[in-house]
Amino acid sequence: MSHSAAELAKYLEAGLSGNRSAQISGVASPERATASDLIYVDSERHLGRAEKSAASCILARPGTRAAGKTIIEVKDPKLAFAKAAVWLLPAAAPAPGVHSTAIVPPTARLGASVSISAYVVLEDGVEIGRNAIIEPFCFIGRGARIGDDCRLHPRVTLYAGARLGNRVEVHAGATIGSDGFGYVPGDGRQWKFPQIGSVEVGDDVEIGAGATIDRGSLESTVIGKGVKIDNLVHIAHNVNVGEHTVIAAQTGISGSSTLGKNVVVGGQVGIADHCTLEDGAVAGAQAGIPTGKIIRSGQTVWGTPARPLDRFKQQYAWFARLPELAARLRKLEDAQGNR
Amino acid sequence: MSHSAAELAKYLEAGLSGNRSAQISGVASPERATASDLIYVDSERHLGRAEKSAASCILARPGTRAAGKTIIEVKDPKLAFAKAAVWLLPAAAPAPGVHSTAIVPPTARLGASVSISAYVVLEDGVEIGRNAIIEPFCFIGRGARIGDDCRLHPRVTLYAGARLGNRVEVHAGATIGSDGFGYVPGDGRQWKFPQIGSVEVGDDVEIGAGATIDRGSLESTVIGKGVKIDNLVHIAHNVNVGEHTVIAAQTGISGSSTLGKNVVVGGQVGIADHCTLEDGAVAGAQAGIPTGKIIRSGQTVWGTPARPLDRFKQQYAWFARLPELAARLRKLEDAQGNR
Amino acid sequence: MSHSAAELAKYLEAGLSGNRSAQISGVASPERATASDLIYVDSERHLGRAEKSAASCILARPGTRAAGKTIIEVKDPKLAFAKAAVWLLPAAAPAPGVHSTAIVPPTARLGASVSISAYVVLEDGVEIGRNAIIEPFCFIGRGARIGDDCRLHPRVTLYAGARLGNRVEVHAGATIGSDGFGYVPGDGRQWKFPQIGSVEVGDDVEIGAGATIDRGSLESTVIGKGVKIDNLVHIAHNVNVGEHTVIAAQTGISGSSTLGKNVVVGGQVGIADHCTLEDGAVAGAQAGIPTGKIIRSGQTVWGTPARPLDRFKQQYAWFARLPELAARLRKLEDAQGNR
Repeated sequence: MSHSAAELAKYLEAGLSGNRSAQISGVASPERATASDLIYVDSERHLGRAEKSAASCILARPGTRAAGKTIIEVKDPKLAFAKAAVWLLPAAAPAPGVHSTAIVPPTARLGASVSISAYVVLEDGVEIGRNAIIEPFCFIGRGARIGDDCRLHPRVTLYAGARLGNRVEVHAGATIGSDGFGYVPGDGRQWKFPQIGSVEVGDDVEIGAGATIDRGSLESTVIGKGVKIDNLVHIAHNVNVGEHTVIAAQTGISGSSTLGKNVVVGGQVGIADHCTLEDGAVAGAQAGIPTGKIIRSGQTVWGTPARPLDRFKQQYAWFARLPELAARLRKLEDAQGNR
Repeated sequence: MSHSAAELAKYLEAGLSGNRSAQISGVASPERATASDLIYVDSERHLGRAEKSAASCILARPGTRAAGKTIIEVKDPKLAFAKAAVWLLPAAAPAPGVHSTAIVPPTARLGASVSISAYVVLEDGVEIGRNAIIEPFCFIGRGARIGDDCRLHPRVTLYAGARLGNRVEVHAGATIGSDGFGYVPGDGRQWKFPQIGSVEVGDDVEIGAGATIDRGSLESTVIGKGVKIDNLVHIAHNVNVGEHTVIAAQTGISGSSTLGKNVVVGGQVGIADHCTLEDGAVAGAQAGIPTGKIIRSGQTVWGTPARPLDRFKQQYAWFARLPELAARLRKLEDAQGNR
Repeated sequence: MSHSAAELAKYLEAGLSGNRSAQISGVASPERATASDLIYVDSERHLGRAEKSAASCILARPGTRAAGKTIIEVKDPKLAFAKAAVWLLPAAAPAPGVHSTAIVPPTARLGASVSISAYVVLEDGVEIGRNAIIEPFCFIGRGARIGDDCRLHPRVTLYAGARLGNRVEVHAGATIGSDGFGYVPGDGRQWKFPQIGSVEVGDDVEIGAGATIDRGSLESTVIGKGVKIDNLVHIAHNVNVGEHTVIAAQTGISGSSTLGKNVVVGGQVGIADHCTLEDGAVAGAQAGIPTGKIIRSGQTVWGTPARPLDRFKQQYAWFARLPELAARLRKLEDAQGNR
């Protein structure tokens, strides 16, 4: 499907300079663009790439000009590019319907226009909202609920009772609602603490490939609306993640920790149990946050054990100069010895 | 199913104070409990939560009293709660039988009362013990053996020849017996070292979602009985993990390392190859244990490279004071310069 | 299948001392070997193990002798052992053919002698090369291409358009071509940046169980030929990995980073976005390489933030002596105070 530059400018509530009827049907990087691909320029530095591009239409800051190009003028070109892509490129989706090999018990309730692919297994009492897409090898356990417009890529597993909101996208191989890791030692062995809580995922969440989110032990594990979780992230029982928080790949969050809204967690971060990251806190990649620690709103931390970024950098600068400090200390000692 | 407080006290070999016929049918946290849910109180501090709860029956230390509540008196309430939960709440299990879509070759041997769900694939010579539950999309490779009372959640993969003991529970998406990561460089490329050993998992082991346990190269990878492995843990070829050891999420153990009995490994720990963690050793979260290192029995280590916890804390305290130390050193130098 | 020592020596272009007609049908460690298993000795220190072994034939350095044993003389016994194993032990493979439960649309193109196992789903336009083996529960998305002689173990997922070269082996549960993790914040939420690039995997690559390789956003994610990727590794959008590079378990590589040829990356390493590791660079286990960092050709780094290994070791040695340095500083201060 193709749109004119004028239609796109209208959709983005943006100004336009150039050819109003330039046709746009895709998005691309400047180097890969054809005439009908939209590109964006985020800074003056990259304007040359855009000018050399075959693209006829560019998202750029107001006032930007490029010879022979149509400019759609926006304050945040990268954001506008992301919005335009959603509008121009609806995700390829299988046709609605239930494949003959899907196992759908009579107690399952399916919304209108759902797509249930081959080799999907639904257990008793499952509910799936309208327009949801369930790809092959997904398993939806007893009583689990999936909202409207969700997409589960191949081999996603929801354990019994797990609940997803609307417009949730879960990538291949993610597991939601597995038992938490809780044991009580006694009689020379480990006794499993009951892991019978639920897991609730809010609207507009995206969950990466291979990620695991455990059910609560006695309470619930809660993922707030708009949260974005990268590949191979682990979220333990009873964790609570606030709205629009972003968690990068391979991070692990231990039991009963709470993340506020708009928290940003880098990759491979380890958050121990019972921690609190207040709204807007930031944890740098590989940071390790010890048990019970509170990271204040808006604070950025790094290192293991995690500390405020400025402090960490200062300390680390001296760490790098330790051999020099030691030599200076030796020199003072020698001077004293010689006195 | 419901039990009386007296029956539960008998099962736990515990004292009882209050209503012997109070009925108990579940477990819960104090805040979520109904009258028939068992709760527990671990410390005086939490007694108020229990008193305000709707629960009629509380597991607590001997001598504890709460108005209107029946107390089952035990030395370790959390442990008793875990035991009671196992007794009160048998895991929901599919009915025995082999689903019509399961692929079971004539050479496979199935024990009595097994449950083989839809879309399970067994290869030649597989053996599965009695009462075992194999959920959808599990793949059991040629000659693999699964003991009695095991449960494999959806899409668990056992490569050819992998062996599980009795009462092993494996969560969704775990892989057992994949090839180890061993190569020999030569002629400008990497040659795969043979990965033809086996993997043996003992009784009462639990393995988390997405975990991977590689087969041995020429020897075996061995997981001792009672070991608990969290989500997304990686265990490499020829590793040997002793009985009742606990390994938290996202930890990786490299080739040929040996963990003793009752070792505790935190989350995101990295154990390099040929390490030894003796019985009862503890590795704190994110610790990095270098190649060949030996951690002595009962020792707790932290940091990368890992060192005894006390030593690490002392060193780290000075790390945090490095800017101060540097300033003090400068002051001494200035004083000397002025002399 | 059995070969004589003379045949093996010829295959390896090696010398031979002893019984030319000794029969060899397998490989093993010295302790597990039977008379017909080949073993190898890498150093004088291990010669005793070989002499005590039941094996009749040993790969060893030229001039090595062991009573009653046939010696095949090679410069690099471990490398020769790896090559011999490939020759002696072809991997067990399912018979060619397409299982009746596999879903193969008419638009899919299958090469000669492919093996498509039970419960495999191919989407439209998939191409699979000759002799390829696709095991149960694999999902190959629309238009994806798989080269000759590839092996996909159970439940591998290729998203639409992903491309594998020849002789690529992918272990259970790996995901190739999932959406990258890119968002643009705006209007109080996260907008998904388009993730429409491709992923291209070269010849002779091996990918570990549970690993995830994201597709490019607007460009491609590229894995060069001969690259070896361990279990649970994460590779983000637009990453470029050069030929024969080796990446150990649980490492994560963030968006748009570039690794050269023959790079060696240890386990649990974190490489932030837009980094460059030049040819032959080495990153030690758990190292953290910050955004935009360049690691020079042949350099070895360790620590977070990563620095040259020698420098790191020197700094760390002083870190361990910080309590001592602080005491010495105090002593100097006291001496000055007493003057």
